[in-house]
Amino acid sequence: MKKFRDRLLQKIKCILFDVFGTVVDWRESIASEASLLGKKYKINGNWYEFADKWRNAYNTEIQSVNQGKRNWISVDDIHMERLETLLEEYKFPKLEKEKKISFNQSWHRLKPWPDSVEGLQRLKSKYIIAPLSNGNMSLLTNMGKYSNLPWDAIISAELSTKYKPDPSVYQLGAKLMGCKTSETLMVAAHKFDLIGALNAGLLAAMVIRPKEFGERKADIDNDTRWEYYSKDFNELADQLNCK
Amino acid sequence: MKKFRDRLLQKIKCILFDVFGTVVDWRESIASEASLLGKKYKINGNWYEFADKWRNAYNTEIQSVNQGKRNWISVDDIHMERLETLLEEYKFPKLEKEKKISFNQSWHRLKPWPDSVEGLQRLKSKYIIAPLSNGNMSLLTNMGKYSNLPWDAIISAELSTKYKPDPSVYQLGAKLMGCKTSETLMVAAHKFDLIGALNAGLLAAMVIRPKEFGERKADIDNDTRWEYYSKDFNELADQLNCK
Repeated sequence: MKKFRDRLLQKIKCILFDVFGTVVDWRESIASEASLLGKKYKINGNWYEFADKWRNAYNTEIQSVNQGKRNWISVDDIHMERLETLLEEYKFPKLEKEKKISFNQSWHRLKPWPDSVEGLQRLKSKYIIAPLSNGNMSLLTNMGKYSNLPWDAIISAELSTKYKPDPSVYQLGAKLMGCKTSETLMVAAHKFDLIGALNAGLLAAMVIRPKEFGERKADIDNDTRWEYYSKDFNELADQLNCK
Repeated sequence: MKKFRDRLLQKIKCILFDVFGTVVDWRESIASEASLLGKKYKINGNWYEFADKWRNAYNTEIQSVNQGKRNWISVDDIHMERLETLLEEYKFPKLEKEKKISFNQSWHRLKPWPDSVEGLQRLKSKYIIAPLSNGNMSLLTNMGKYSNLPWDAIISAELSTKYKPDPSVYQLGAKLMGCKTSETLMVAAHKFDLIGALNAGLLAAMVIRPKEFGERKADIDNDTRWEYYSKDFNELADQLNCK
């Protein structure tokens, strides 16, 4: 077993990361910004529910894109579409375009989980690290800058105009980083994403985020298919022998 | 004039950088690595000339790609093609594939000009900064990591499968960073690159690198077409009011 682990460690050259839920806590961040906007306009609401509804737009629309039911649309644009209907549903007054754009960019200001920045710094000392997210390039770039995520590069599904878990996204990510798929480790808190990575020939590491969905259950169970399983990025860095 | 400058400053959101010659001193770095390899195999040569010949492959082949004379080929692969002929020309013994790949990756280990890292840090404090280079994504990512270039993202001509100065490259760069072309400043030490950027609707800043080609003359003259002109990245950071 030890030898197998050592061989695995020697193979890995680059690590790609899911971002929403895995690196950053989107739910807490969005609920917090929505609550501030609510206060400003004297609107009461369950802002966690607001965040969940906003996030659900993403889940349905990326499937439509991958099934060929609609043309490529960026995550920023998916968010804006749903924001329009949410603002009506929650009875906000009609907002100026600039204000809507700025609020939509709440998704560019998501806060990292407490271990994310330190863990990424440790992993970066030994490996090439980049996000491999369905979020568009500018969203990921702005978020990285805002939250001091020390990425070596930014890779988005936007570059393959298919969304994860389409295999092309993972394969393009590895290729752009100059690595074989078998040299590339995908890190995510979600089973569907890790299965997608494995289907594309990558290695898989689950980092669990039990609180991602609040009370609702997250993917927290280990699975023999994952090469690594850890409770946070620091534990993953330990497993990968990073200082 | 002051007002015009102020308006210009307010417009700029993102800065894209040529890399080879503008951020890093490819000629000195390559000559130095070639000289080391020469010593190892007891071969004498003019290693600056070696570097120039290697670089010339790039100049001819990217034109062939843009003219449709050959299919897309990455800069790493262009370098490897020319390296094969150069090793013969300089009478190196037959090298193993791994050694050739490692030597070809000299281009991933180019040293920044003395002002580059500090200047980029200052510019990054106020703007989104990314390379917009003809070098492929993995080359730019590895170089950034090797030389501590503090990029917010990596953008390469590889993503548009055309080479600069094709307008599509600049336009894609601005789009991926979430900026209008009119909000995007291209920084380069080469006229052809800045003209390409202007043709694509971007703003242009020349930073001169008089020693890029050794004795041969570099582009050092100011031109009314550039919005900014400076002797190094720190002077550019001053002009852009960065701390």
